[in-house]
Amino acid sequence: MTGSLEALLAPQSVAVIGASDEPGRIGGRPIHSMLSAGFAGRIYPVNPRRETAQGLHCYPDIASVPEPVDCVIVSVPASVAVEVIADCAKAGARSAIMFTSGFAETGASGSSAQQQIAGIARSSGMRIVGPNCLGIFNLEIGWFGTFANTLASCKLPCGPIGIITQSGAYGSHLFTITQNRGVGSTYWVTTGNECDVDVAEVISCYAAIDSIRVIVAYAEGIGDGERLRQAFADARAARKPVIFMKVGMTEAGARAAASHTASLAGSDSIYDGLFAQYGVWRAETTEEMADIAYAAQFDRYPTGNRISLQTISGGVGVQLADAASRRGFEVTPLPETTRAKMLEVIPFGGVNNPVDFTGQALNDRTILDRCMELTVEEGGYHSHIIYIASLAASPFTRDLSLSVFRQLRERYPDELFLMSMIAPEEIRRRYEEMGYPCFEDHSLAVRAMAALRHFKLVFERGAPRPAAKLPAGVLPVPGAMAGEQDAREFLASAGIPVVDGAQAATADAAVQAWRRIGGPVVLKIASPDIAHKTEIGGVLLDLDDEDAVCGGYATLLDRARAAAPDARISGVTVSRMVRGGIETVLGAVQDPVFGPVVMFGLGGIFVEVLRDVSFRVAPFGEDEARDMIDAIRGRAVLDGVRGAPPGDVDALARALSRLSVLAAANAATIDSIDVNPFLVLPEGAVAVDALIVPRRD
Amino acid sequence: MTGSLEALLAPQSVAVIGASDEPGRIGGRPIHSMLSAGFAGRIYPVNPRRETAQGLHCYPDIASVPEPVDCVIVSVPASVAVEVIADCAKAGARSAIMFTSGFAETGASGSSAQQQIAGIARSSGMRIVGPNCLGIFNLEIGWFGTFANTLASCKLPCGPIGIITQSGAYGSHLFTITQNRGVGSTYWVTTGNECDVDVAEVISCYAAIDSIRVIVAYAEGIGDGERLRQAFADARAARKPVIFMKVGMTEAGARAAASHTASLAGSDSIYDGLFAQYGVWRAETTEEMADIAYAAQFDRYPTGNRISLQTISGGVGVQLADAASRRGFEVTPLPETTRAKMLEVIPFGGVNNPVDFTGQALNDRTILDRCMELTVEEGGYHSHIIYIASLAASPFTRDLSLSVFRQLRERYPDELFLMSMIAPEEIRRRYEEMGYPCFEDHSLAVRAMAALRHFKLVFERGAPRPAAKLPAGVLPVPGAMAGEQDAREFLASAGIPVVDGAQAATADAAVQAWRRIGGPVVLKIASPDIAHKTEIGGVLLDLDDEDAVCGGYATLLDRARAAAPDARISGVTVSRMVRGGIETVLGAVQDPVFGPVVMFGLGGIFVEVLRDVSFRVAPFGEDEARDMIDAIRGRAVLDGVRGAPPGDVDALARALSRLSVLAAANAATIDSIDVNPFLVLPEGAVAVDALIVPRRD
Repeated sequence: MTGSLEALLAPQSVAVIGASDEPGRIGGRPIHSMLSAGFAGRIYPVNPRRETAQGLHCYPDIASVPEPVDCVIVSVPASVAVEVIADCAKAGARSAIMFTSGFAETGASGSSAQQQIAGIARSSGMRIVGPNCLGIFNLEIGWFGTFANTLASCKLPCGPIGIITQSGAYGSHLFTITQNRGVGSTYWVTTGNECDVDVAEVISCYAAIDSIRVIVAYAEGIGDGERLRQAFADARAARKPVIFMKVGMTEAGARAAASHTASLAGSDSIYDGLFAQYGVWRAETTEEMADIAYAAQFDRYPTGNRISLQTISGGVGVQLADAASRRGFEVTPLPETTRAKMLEVIPFGGVNNPVDFTGQALNDRTILDRCMELTVEEGGYHSHIIYIASLAASPFTRDLSLSVFRQLRERYPDELFLMSMIAPEEIRRRYEEMGYPCFEDHSLAVRAMAALRHFKLVFERGAPRPAAKLPAGVLPVPGAMAGEQDAREFLASAGIPVVDGAQAATADAAVQAWRRIGGPVVLKIASPDIAHKTEIGGVLLDLDDEDAVCGGYATLLDRARAAAPDARISGVTVSRMVRGGIETVLGAVQDPVFGPVVMFGLGGIFVEVLRDVSFRVAPFGEDEARDMIDAIRGRAVLDGVRGAPPGDVDALARALSRLSVLAAANAATIDSIDVNPFLVLPEGAVAVDALIVPRRD
Repeated sequence: MTGSLEALLAPQSVAVIGASDEPGRIGGRPIHSMLSAGFAGRIYPVNPRRETAQGLHCYPDIASVPEPVDCVIVSVPASVAVEVIADCAKAGARSAIMFTSGFAETGASGSSAQQQIAGIARSSGMRIVGPNCLGIFNLEIGWFGTFANTLASCKLPCGPIGIITQSGAYGSHLFTITQNRGVGSTYWVTTGNECDVDVAEVISCYAAIDSIRVIVAYAEGIGDGERLRQAFADARAARKPVIFMKVGMTEAGARAAASHTASLAGSDSIYDGLFAQYGVWRAETTEEMADIAYAAQFDRYPTGNRISLQTISGGVGVQLADAASRRGFEVTPLPETTRAKMLEVIPFGGVNNPVDFTGQALNDRTILDRCMELTVEEGGYHSHIIYIASLAASPFTRDLSLSVFRQLRERYPDELFLMSMIAPEEIRRRYEEMGYPCFEDHSLAVRAMAALRHFKLVFERGAPRPAAKLPAGVLPVPGAMAGEQDAREFLASAGIPVVDGAQAATADAAVQAWRRIGGPVVLKIASPDIAHKTEIGGVLLDLDDEDAVCGGYATLLDRARAAAPDARISGVTVSRMVRGGIETVLGAVQDPVFGPVVMFGLGGIFVEVLRDVSFRVAPFGEDEARDMIDAIRGRAVLDGVRGAPPGDVDALARALSRLSVLAAANAATIDSIDVNPFLVLPEGAVAVDALIVPRRD
């Protein structure tokens, strides 16, 4: 079922090295848990100093275990760990789980030991989880490759959630919280230092397991960005929501992450970009992760934005309306005719949406029945949130509430209702069994509904159209000495529109260039040693006759020699003078984790002051580029403001997509591409200046 | 104790009109609750059809009650409510609580009935809460002027929280949630339609009650902005945190609010400004309100930003570091020497801050003792967050944990520790009794700590310095016909710097003005009928000789006549040409709720596209103005970007403060003042253009 991780997630045979007779000890708890949970596979305790462990025969070493096992649990000290892992590989074990800590997280010597272990995994093909992890469990088959006391916090039957975390301690925290929240998990993996198996591979694997419908992941750092990207693509293809907490986004957090695992922190906004690209829901708190996973496990998603809000409290109605609008839902009023009918039932209530059926609902069940019936039958909503305060719990109304909502569910089995109620766990379970997700905080119910809508859109959109191929005849990457004109010609050859221009080594050449361009031009000093041309007066605008161009050439060379006597000067660039247009900035950089990523922002203060930029991992198509453009706060500028005409967003999106393809195709040779400014015109767009920094390795 | 609300909050004698023998009925529950809670005051049931109610003698009407009571509880139908209220006033009742609904919230006829009731309150001096409310309770004296089943959700002893909400149903929801969260409340008031007593007056009253240390308020709309402002000032003076949920901020929310109460929605960003002005914490969800109130009730506040993060899970440590940094805390590393000492205790742990004392802490109590000791003694932190997972609950570690933290508290009685733990209520209570606020979600613990820090700063700052008075000789408010020059002279007379200029009715006058100004000038057409001068070419820049000015005058008049033949033209304005400076916009408007409010933003797209503006209620001083300036996202522009010099923020703050005083002083006559652009120069600042719209009533 799960490719190369099957031996880890669903082993038939397990060896426990350092097996203990004590259920409480690290070497004892896995055995104890499996025995209590009725693990059907074969368990081989390994311990030279014992005859038996917890009633099972003990073997002196892994070599003497009668079969090559699917998985070995290793909890020996770091000092002997490498040796033991080597023995396991020799004995033909298909996989191993290493609890042992004291490796990469502790510094240089630990890292090299971890390298050896990784080497064994590569050479032998034995898959390894850890080291410095809390292991794995699979409740479906009673498999406990962990010393976490899972069974103690296990309150629910197996559910559709698969959990994957790097941190072991946080992994068990998350499991406890989700259990308390009513989230039914079956699979749980902690990857620790990730010498072999990493979070990304487990996500891909979860995507392939039918019984997993929702993936909950936690990571502090990512080693292989491409694999993570593939994992997200797999999950999206399988239409499984991914709820991801990525931490270490602040400097303090990154410092803590580095000292906790040996992970690259990377740039947090690039993670935001990647998550947006693949429709991953980024959770900021554990509570949010649990809440969204909880809602998603019911496997019902809103097919549109129109939402109905039903409430027993007008005040809560107002809050629901606020929250729903802010989350992008349409709180559409009920049809006039429906409102009239409803007023007959609740003359003092609110019938506009929110529907406020008031405290009267406590006395008269027909009110709830009728309001819900009218709303569902005539409102044309895609989803509903129903707030009933303590109605479901109060001894006076408990039975009424239960029968009302049972009937509602029977009449409308496919309708999406989220409930907000104050009720003890056992009562909430009754409603959950009827297919009502329950939330104590009504505002958080709205957040969950927004997440469900988000996932629905992601599933519907599926994989965006791929990027167009590069045109034939793309020029070679300019070298370190390349000037503005080389950069522009390189971009142009890749199909990115650039301003018409030429480089001129003499005044005559400059004049010829101006003649060819046929209109006002800009002259800029051309020198690999002068980065900020304007600061030395190295730019002349709007020249449109022979004398001006000729004189301009001389002026620029004089200024350059005066300001930077040693600068190598290759003449000037002559470019068509472009008027108007919306100033934007396009960039491509090599991220240590994700490789080539593309940045987009509006010019000037938008980037410099507001840091209003969006990222995507390259390559990507024009649809993705459009999302990327829409992601910035200043987006409206492209629609034209202060009397300016709207910009050609299609041309902009095309350029971004082509830049992403170009950066991806030349990842090995280009360190960064900076297109600044890139002017978006009413029709078309042009790169006015560009800087390409080749990789120096 | 509580001025004119004493009869409502702490009555000695109570009459219940429509008294019932049934504890479950609306007219029965208040009596039942008071009897069960041992209310010490006198209770007079009123019901012509009964001899007794719940064992108490019944009176036929309020007139026959033997004394003028402190408070009457009225739950009669709307049809007779006005009459009954009149009788109560006649009988000398000091206050009344009206549960009855069917007034302003239902439309016109209901509104007029409510007006009559308000009239009775005004003329008789009898204070009225409601109508359409759920009443009041005061647990300290067992006073229950409510039919809410409070006692059922009451789990905690009286605490320092005072709750005030407009919505009754939401009020009881909030009480239940806060009780479940461990928030101890004593006072609870719901004001419903607020025909007399409103949220603001109750906040002021809570500020005066010693036993209330934290104020939790909920409102959908505010009738009297000035009273709310006064209430916030009272609470700040009493150093009591106010946690406020104001809803109805979106269009849908406002629509729902209007249908729920009869309240003005007002502009939400003005509420944000007011809350910032008085240090009120605006909560977005019920969970947030409860969480912050919970933290504040321990009455310990961080005296600085340096925070230590202690964790049993490295992963949680990373999350804590992220959250703390994002909330503005300094996650300062421990001193080198301290780290060395700590490494001896936890060689594999993190000692940098976050301190990761790892799972080892489960086996060896000295680890926790020593880590905390070193942190507190040598770290110099202002606060601490300690995450211990299930340590406090697990049967293996419960006692160890309890004794560790009891000792810690004994050693450091005044240190501020927030705990994050997974533990059942009864265990959390133990830690709370030792003075440890407990949070299940560690990220939310950080949010709570941020709120505590916020309140501490508010208390320390206290009331900001008041605004400077207006200078003598402020000109009268310009009338509707006023032009640019009149507006500038008016602002100048109020001490707001304006560009040097004059109005000229002839070309000669224009030339004289230019001579006097002595430098390049800007000519603008002066006409009350031409709003957008630039669009008709009505602005000429940078004129600096007699012919240019003279010719410019003619040009402008020709253009004006051509573009707007019927426009009344009073000549041109001649203004000094100002170069450079940072473009900002200052505005003052009359808000229906808060009266004069002042708006600040940067020019152009900042206001038009990003809506990046901040508000304050006028009048305010320069300190407040500086906060207002710092509140915009684009603040850095004022420090100078892209090579521009920084702007004179003091001059800007002075102008904002003066504008606020000017707007407040002329609230009766000025509808709005728009100073746009207001150029902030390296030294000083200057209003280039201004528009003043007088009130037409």
